[in-house]
Amino acid sequence: MDRTHYIKDAIKGNVEIAGWVHDFRDLGKLKFVLVRDITGIMQVTMKKGVVDDRLLEQVNVNKEDVVSFEGEIKENKIAPGGRELIPAKFKHLNKVERKLPVDPTGHVDSELDTRLDYRYIDLRRKEVSLIFKTKSICAHAFREKLRELGFIEIHPSAITGTATEGGADVFPIQYFENKAYLVQSPQLYKQLAVIGGFDKVSMTVPVFRAEKHNTTSHLNEVTQMDIEMGFADHNDAMDVLEQVSLHMLKLAKEEVGDEIAEVFKHEVVIPKKIPKYKYSELIEKLGKNGF
Amino acid sequence: MDRTHYIKDAIKGNVEIAGWVHDFRDLGKLKFVLVRDITGIMQVTMKKGVVDDRLLEQVNVNKEDVVSFEGEIKENKIAPGGRELIPAKFKHLNKVERKLPVDPTGHVDSELDTRLDYRYIDLRRKEVSLIFKTKSICAHAFREKLRELGFIEIHPSAITGTATEGGADVFPIQYFENKAYLVQSPQLYKQLAVIGGFDKVSMTVPVFRAEKHNTTSHLNEVTQMDIEMGFADHNDAMDVLEQVSLHMLKLAKEEVGDEIAEVFKHEVVIPKKIPKYKYSELIEKLGKNGF
Repeated sequence: MDRTHYIKDAIKGNVEIAGWVHDFRDLGKLKFVLVRDITGIMQVTMKKGVVDDRLLEQVNVNKEDVVSFEGEIKENKIAPGGRELIPAKFKHLNKVERKLPVDPTGHVDSELDTRLDYRYIDLRRKEVSLIFKTKSICAHAFREKLRELGFIEIHPSAITGTATEGGADVFPIQYFENKAYLVQSPQLYKQLAVIGGFDKVSMTVPVFRAEKHNTTSHLNEVTQMDIEMGFADHNDAMDVLEQVSLHMLKLAKEEVGDEIAEVFKHEVVIPKKIPKYKYSELIEKLGKNGF
Repeated sequence: MDRTHYIKDAIKGNVEIAGWVHDFRDLGKLKFVLVRDITGIMQVTMKKGVVDDRLLEQVNVNKEDVVSFEGEIKENKIAPGGRELIPAKFKHLNKVERKLPVDPTGHVDSELDTRLDYRYIDLRRKEVSLIFKTKSICAHAFREKLRELGFIEIHPSAITGTATEGGADVFPIQYFENKAYLVQSPQLYKQLAVIGGFDKVSMTVPVFRAEKHNTTSHLNEVTQMDIEMGFADHNDAMDVLEQVSLHMLKLAKEEVGDEIAEVFKHEVVIPKKIPKYKYSELIEKLGKNGF
């Protein structure tokens, strides 16, 4: 490994950190490099007389260069996290060779098209990576609760021989000599698993809908978190899904609640119960308040 | 719910169990029904004079009928699990209306084609359901270890704009006006996630290969359990995969080791280390011993 510690764990002593140059300042006899990894940002401070002259000269970086630094952690109240790294070794693992098309620090806004064209740089923005972190935690929490409740996870096929739900809006596949389709839902497969005696099954699988859209919220491909239960009615299913939803919120709050509050100015609130409505009640409610 | 207890948890007292009629015996004044759910088999015993006459008359079942019984658990050394259920209530939830095309008890063998045509019945065979249970445990263990090691789970797309790996053996999709393909691997997506700063990512996603085959082991669609790591080399990756593999074996042994031993006459053995070979060593080893 090119590191001994993630930045959040590099609290004291001699460490090696690795990541991207988030920002830098070069004052000749004093250089600062902010190194970013998935866990945080560390200020690396190089002052003439304190670090080796050759090192000071060698550290010649640009934003988003890939670097590693080895050295001592020192307290510094005005640095991010109240500490800084005084390096003894530097590795320039990779250099950015042209102007960055997207600014990962978020200082400069980009058009959505540009962000998607350079998604691998856009992912470095905290607002974006936090969404993926949260999604990962939610997928885990979903499965953890269902496993505790005795569900078997299945991996039904993404391919189906017949178009479901009326046959509209499916993606056709050439499956050898036959026509097949990408699934719109694991519905039939999961029901067959329950009829097959698995009793309670869960899955997190991709599903596809060939709906043309002109928004950033769409359904062409999503990960469906799904369950099916035998010997149960809709109230049993809602009880399970309530437990699952609350567990997802709980874990997200525990693990990234502070980051979500900081980045999105939004507190994760966990209700005691999730309200249940009858269809007629909901239609009335929505009718009054608008969609 | 149509049950208060799974069969394995119905140890004593008054319980309701639900499942399928695995087998039955009708001796007029004495009836036995073996009820099967995903956790086991329970003998339900109805003797004239012990149970209500109307109940004795009412219980008129066939193999694979769906039933529930409520009653008292009693000790019975010669029954499966050393206990039986003396019922007070019976529900005939669903009846089999024609001859079963596949025998779930495994007494009668079926052709593979028949088994696949009636997969939802074939899944009830212990040999088959145990494979799915084990797969579910392995998927869980894979993710549990990786989460512990700080991996972020991602859900890369199953669709790609360009055919990878030389372009052979892919399933083409009509993606609106464009031609697209089902992914052969999440390779590019996972690498972009690491370049995007996620550092360590894991995924369990479907991948597809349009390879014609004439065996029961093939690759048209499989669930790929995959990882990618930044700032790491192949030894770091092998170390992670060793931990993951051992954890999968450990959990499978703990949770279904006994069932695997019983059904497949195979003990789950957990090695201390997983041996690592150089390519040249392996080729020599294989050359000597044959494939």
